[in-house]
Amino acid sequence: MGATVMHPTTVQVVLDLVGIFVFAITGALVAVRKDLDVFAVLVLAGTTGLGGGFLRDVLIDAAPPAALADWRYLLVPVVAGLVTFFFHPALGRAERVVNVLDAAGLSLFCVTGAVKALDYGLGPVPASLMGMVTGVGGGMLRDVLAGRVPLVFRGDLYATPALVGAGVAVAGLEAGLHLAVVAGPAAVVCFGWRVVAMRRGWNAPRPAGSAST
Amino acid sequence: MGATVMHPTTVQVVLDLVGIFVFAITGALVAVRKDLDVFAVLVLAGTTGLGGGFLRDVLIDAAPPAALADWRYLLVPVVAGLVTFFFHPALGRAERVVNVLDAAGLSLFCVTGAVKALDYGLGPVPASLMGMVTGVGGGMLRDVLAGRVPLVFRGDLYATPALVGAGVAVAGLEAGLHLAVVAGPAAVVCFGWRVVAMRRGWNAPRPAGSAST
Amino acid sequence: MGATVMHPTTVQVVLDLVGIFVFAITGALVAVRKDLDVFAVLVLAGTTGLGGGFLRDVLIDAAPPAALADWRYLLVPVVAGLVTFFFHPALGRAERVVNVLDAAGLSLFCVTGAVKALDYGLGPVPASLMGMVTGVGGGMLRDVLAGRVPLVFRGDLYATPALVGAGVAVAGLEAGLHLAVVAGPAAVVCFGWRVVAMRRGWNAPRPAGSAST
Repeated sequence: MGATVMHPTTVQVVLDLVGIFVFAITGALVAVRKDLDVFAVLVLAGTTGLGGGFLRDVLIDAAPPAALADWRYLLVPVVAGLVTFFFHPALGRAERVVNVLDAAGLSLFCVTGAVKALDYGLGPVPASLMGMVTGVGGGMLRDVLAGRVPLVFRGDLYATPALVGAGVAVAGLEAGLHLAVVAGPAAVVCFGWRVVAMRRGWNAPRPAGSAST
Repeated sequence: MGATVMHPTTVQVVLDLVGIFVFAITGALVAVRKDLDVFAVLVLAGTTGLGGGFLRDVLIDAAPPAALADWRYLLVPVVAGLVTFFFHPALGRAERVVNVLDAAGLSLFCVTGAVKALDYGLGPVPASLMGMVTGVGGGMLRDVLAGRVPLVFRGDLYATPALVGAGVAVAGLEAGLHLAVVAGPAAVVCFGWRVVAMRRGWNAPRPAGSAST
Repeated sequence: MGATVMHPTTVQVVLDLVGIFVFAITGALVAVRKDLDVFAVLVLAGTTGLGGGFLRDVLIDAAPPAALADWRYLLVPVVAGLVTFFFHPALGRAERVVNVLDAAGLSLFCVTGAVKALDYGLGPVPASLMGMVTGVGGGMLRDVLAGRVPLVFRGDLYATPALVGAGVAVAGLEAGLHLAVVAGPAAVVCFGWRVVAMRRGWNAPRPAGSAST
C-alpha cells in the first residue's frame, strides 16, 4: 500500500489535479468578488488548491510538499486562476456546479490526505484528522488571507463529512482492505453527505444561547 | 536531561494535558461568543490547545508534532470543546477562574516549549523565544481564525511573562541545574507576573502618539 | 554554488540582515499605526522581517530556519522594533525612503530565497516561487496578524517583480552562470520594476466587473 501511494498512479494524479483545479477556482472567485487584482486571484487560487496539502505535509514531516516537486501541481492553480479571472461571470452563474465540484474535491482530498498520513506512520485518529485538514485547510487559508472568518465555521456541514470520509478510509485500510476497494466508498460517504447537506440546508448545531461575556 | 524530555514523565504528560485542556476552553469560548457552530467550537478548541506546540515543532523540525502521535493529545481538546459547547454559560460566569487557569497553562507551556527547543539543539535565545511561541502561539492562531486582532497584541501583559519564564528555565538549565529544580521557579515567575498584571490592570507601554501616515 | 550558499559569505549575511531590518521596520510601523503595544510592535517586526524565510524553510524542509540558529537574526528585528517604537514619527515622515528600502529588501530576498530553494533540490519553477514567497511572505503574515487583507493583494505591483527577479536568478544559475554574476542583475530587475511601479502608480490588472454572487 505504501508503495502505491508514494508513487501514485496516473489515476490518482489526475484526480488530485482535478481536485486542486476546483478548489483553486473557489479561491479565485473569492478574490474576484473582493475586487482584488490578478495577482491576488492567482495567490488565492494557489493557496486554496494547494494549502490543505501543504499543511498536511508540513505537519506529518513530508516536506517539501509534493506540489513543489512537480510543476503540474503549480500549473493547475495558475490555469484555474486565469480562467476565473477572465470568465468569472459565467462561473458565478454556475455556482451550483462549482459547489458540487468543490464537494468532489473535498471527498477526494480527505481520502488521499488520510492515506498519505497513514503512510507516514500516523495512527488512525491523527491520520483521519490529517485527512480532514487536507480537505478543509486550503479553504481556511483562503478565508484568513481574504480577511473573513473561515466559511467552514459558518453553519453548513463541511468539515464533518470530510472527517467521516477520512475515517472510513482509515478504518478500511486498518481492517486490511486494499486502497482500491476502500477509496471509492469513503469518498462517496463524504460527497453524498456534503451534497445532501447543501441541498437541504443542513447545519451543524450551534451553542444554545450566547455566553455571558 | 534530553532523555527525560524526549520520554516525558507521567507528571509532565498530565501537566501538558491540563494546559491543553485549559487553552482549548478559551478557544471554544471565543467560538461560542461568535455564535459559531459546534465544529468551529471544536476546531478553535484544538487550534488553541495544540497550535503553540505545532508551531514550535514545525519550526524546530520536530514534526510530526507529539500531538499527532498520541491520541490523548487529540482527545483532550475535543472534550474541552464539548464541555464548553454544553456548559458555556457557567464557564462564562467563571471567567476569572478560566483566566487564572489560562495563566497556569501559559506558565507550563513556556517552560516545556523552551526545554524541548534546547533538546533539539537550539541556542539559549532562540529556545526562550520558542518557549514564548509555545505559550502564545495557540491563542494567536485562535484569534486569527476567529477574525480578530490577536488579544496578545491588545495591551495586557501576556507574552512578556512567557518570554521571561522561558528565559529563566533556559538560564537555569544552561547553568547546569536539573530540570526538576528549574521548572518550578520558572513557571512561578511567569504565572505570578501574569496574574498580578491581570489583577492590577498592568499594560505594556504603547507608542507615544500615532505615526503620521 | 551550494557550498557558497550553505555557508553564506559575510557580504550575504550583511545584506540579509539589512533586508530583515527594513522589513521589520515596515511591520513595526503597522503596529504603531494600529496603536498596539510595544510587544505587538516587536512581534510584528519579527514576523515581517523573518516570516518569509520561515515559510520558505518550512516548505523546503530546511527547518530549523537559519534565523533560529544565529542570534543576530533575532536581534535585528528587536532593534528595528525598538527604533520604530521610539522614533516612529520620523520614520512616518520618511515613508518614501522606507518604501525604497523595502523594495531593496524584496529584491534581495527573492534572489536569496530562490537560490536556497535550488540548493535544497527544488526545480526551477518551484524555486522561483519560493523566492517570491521569501520576499512577500513576511508582509503577508504581518497583515494577517494585524487584521487586514494583505497589502500585496491591493493593487500595486509587489509580488510580480519578486517572482520575475527570482526567475532571472534561477534561469542564470540553471544556465551555468556563477551566483556572483547572476545575483546583481536579478535583484536589479526586481528593484527597478518595483520602484518604477511605485513612482508611476502602476497597478496589476483587476477582473472586469464583479462576479454575480
